[in-house]
Amino acid sequence: MEITENQLIKEFKRFEGQSKAIIRGIGDDGAVVDMAQGPHVFVQDAVVEHIHFEFSLMDPRAVGKKAIYVNASDILSMGALPLYFLVTIGIPEHMSRKDIRSLYSGIMQAAGEFDIRLLGGDTSAAKNDFFIDVSMVGKQTGTDYLGRDKAMEGDLIGVTGWLGESAYGLYLLKNGFHGGKRNRFIQRYVNPKPPLEAWKELVHYNIPVAMMDISDGLIIDLERMMKESRKGAHIYFEQVPIPRDIIRAKKENLALAGGEDYQFLFTFPESRLGLVEEVRKKGFPLSVIGRVVKGRGVKLFNKGQAMKITSKGYEHFGAVS
Amino acid sequence: MEITENQLIKEFKRFEGQSKAIIRGIGDDGAVVDMAQGPHVFVQDAVVEHIHFEFSLMDPRAVGKKAIYVNASDILSMGALPLYFLVTIGIPEHMSRKDIRSLYSGIMQAAGEFDIRLLGGDTSAAKNDFFIDVSMVGKQTGTDYLGRDKAMEGDLIGVTGWLGESAYGLYLLKNGFHGGKRNRFIQRYVNPKPPLEAWKELVHYNIPVAMMDISDGLIIDLERMMKESRKGAHIYFEQVPIPRDIIRAKKENLALAGGEDYQFLFTFPESRLGLVEEVRKKGFPLSVIGRVVKGRGVKLFNKGQAMKITSKGYEHFGAVS
Repeated sequence: MEITENQLIKEFKRFEGQSKAIIRGIGDDGAVVDMAQGPHVFVQDAVVEHIHFEFSLMDPRAVGKKAIYVNASDILSMGALPLYFLVTIGIPEHMSRKDIRSLYSGIMQAAGEFDIRLLGGDTSAAKNDFFIDVSMVGKQTGTDYLGRDKAMEGDLIGVTGWLGESAYGLYLLKNGFHGGKRNRFIQRYVNPKPPLEAWKELVHYNIPVAMMDISDGLIIDLERMMKESRKGAHIYFEQVPIPRDIIRAKKENLALAGGEDYQFLFTFPESRLGLVEEVRKKGFPLSVIGRVVKGRGVKLFNKGQAMKITSKGYEHFGAVS
Repeated sequence: MEITENQLIKEFKRFEGQSKAIIRGIGDDGAVVDMAQGPHVFVQDAVVEHIHFEFSLMDPRAVGKKAIYVNASDILSMGALPLYFLVTIGIPEHMSRKDIRSLYSGIMQAAGEFDIRLLGGDTSAAKNDFFIDVSMVGKQTGTDYLGRDKAMEGDLIGVTGWLGESAYGLYLLKNGFHGGKRNRFIQRYVNPKPPLEAWKELVHYNIPVAMMDISDGLIIDLERMMKESRKGAHIYFEQVPIPRDIIRAKKENLALAGGEDYQFLFTFPESRLGLVEEVRKKGFPLSVIGRVVKGRGVKLFNKGQAMKITSKGYEHFGAVS
């Protein structure tokens, strides 16, 4: 890489967050922020080359955006609005200045979409593998956080959007599909923006009680929520929102266990079903896909018939719990 | 690596921060923290294999500690007390479970020394290179932050501790010195704990106005401070605290440009010289090494004679500004 750390910091400083609350931004040992009193949500999540993505399938701009999206998704899942972020980038020698600029530009574009302000971070060289690691802080919007530990027996289970899109997009890319970037599924894989507008509606109507984002696949993530809540769940397969193309391609499993959906999974009392309907009427795709029950684990039913869960979603280490 | 992400998260959860302010800790999409009102300092800094260290010279426990120390050092430099941290670890296949445990244990040991609480983070696989990236938040202790932009003309320049120790330790290690880990310099390289007690004294007596930590070398870091403050600095070489062994080995340059000192560099009005003396009398090594002047850049004098600055300290990318 033909660029010095000082130059990088200087370039990055252009993107510095502007806000009355930021007393001191980039350029010092740390950023100073005047914090409001109350509950704030802290997250940190990395996107690592060869583990989470390949540059052959995703350009630097998309990688930068994704690093923001996955963290914003976690903050939103807790019922908080993202406010600030810091970012560490590990840059291998072979990365060009142009690619680094695209990466920065992707980061700042995604941050702009969520109105999140850059506080600083670290730009480091790396020997072989590129990585980007973002930490983010948000302010809780309601009186309580929307955690994985809040699912209650009898509550309904909902999801935003469609499932399996991103995983099917990756499948298409890996299989040499030439439909280009405009393909809905490839677009969702490359550009996994969390459904912010649907989230605003859900929070506005105070619908969710427990919430999380689907990052590793519906079933594995729902299992995690149930474990934290000490409950079980029944999923009605026929109500899971699977795009027609995925059904035609017989890739329905991707909707259960594909991962990288970055849709919201939430539970809510049946009494709020009317509110869900209202949000739906506004044009936001919301599906009611199951119910929280006594017991443990996730059970899958198709039109009343129990189905065997064969694949639980993937873990980055290859092992499945 | 024979260990799953779930297992790692479970092991890590043991170390979860306990505090009344932590409403929800590890186990969800994010941690929820009840923040007090007022200025907080945010930092994020990574330690990357082959760039910042080699496992051949530093064991995993030391690497874990270092990742905490460098971030705590940044927070303290701003005049804030570290409170919380998140940590992302990128673990290559070849790393053993034992090494990962040592790493965790080092992280938590260092966090304990500063009473900093773990909020969460990310455990990811990595293809080739290990990395650890820590984000940390602290609460400003005084009415104003102690930034790099606050040096004032006529103020004196001070440093804590001794300079060049860590760089000389690395030099010894690289040259096959067999004195073992108890050697003062190797110890400082392997275990670069910021001088917390001296910091407390400085802050208690309200001595520093501008402050930063020395991470890339006295001269390059002082240049950065002067640039941010739009001032110049004169350094009196004979007053720079250089250990006798380093002088004997004719490695004085390491005290000016070696880096990784993790001592505090600060400016203060001459009127507080008596307070500096008081802290010194308590047994804390503090040196007054120069003065802030009108103009730009850093000038070096040895007993009144101007010296040429030949090496400015290193940058990780190999280029020097």
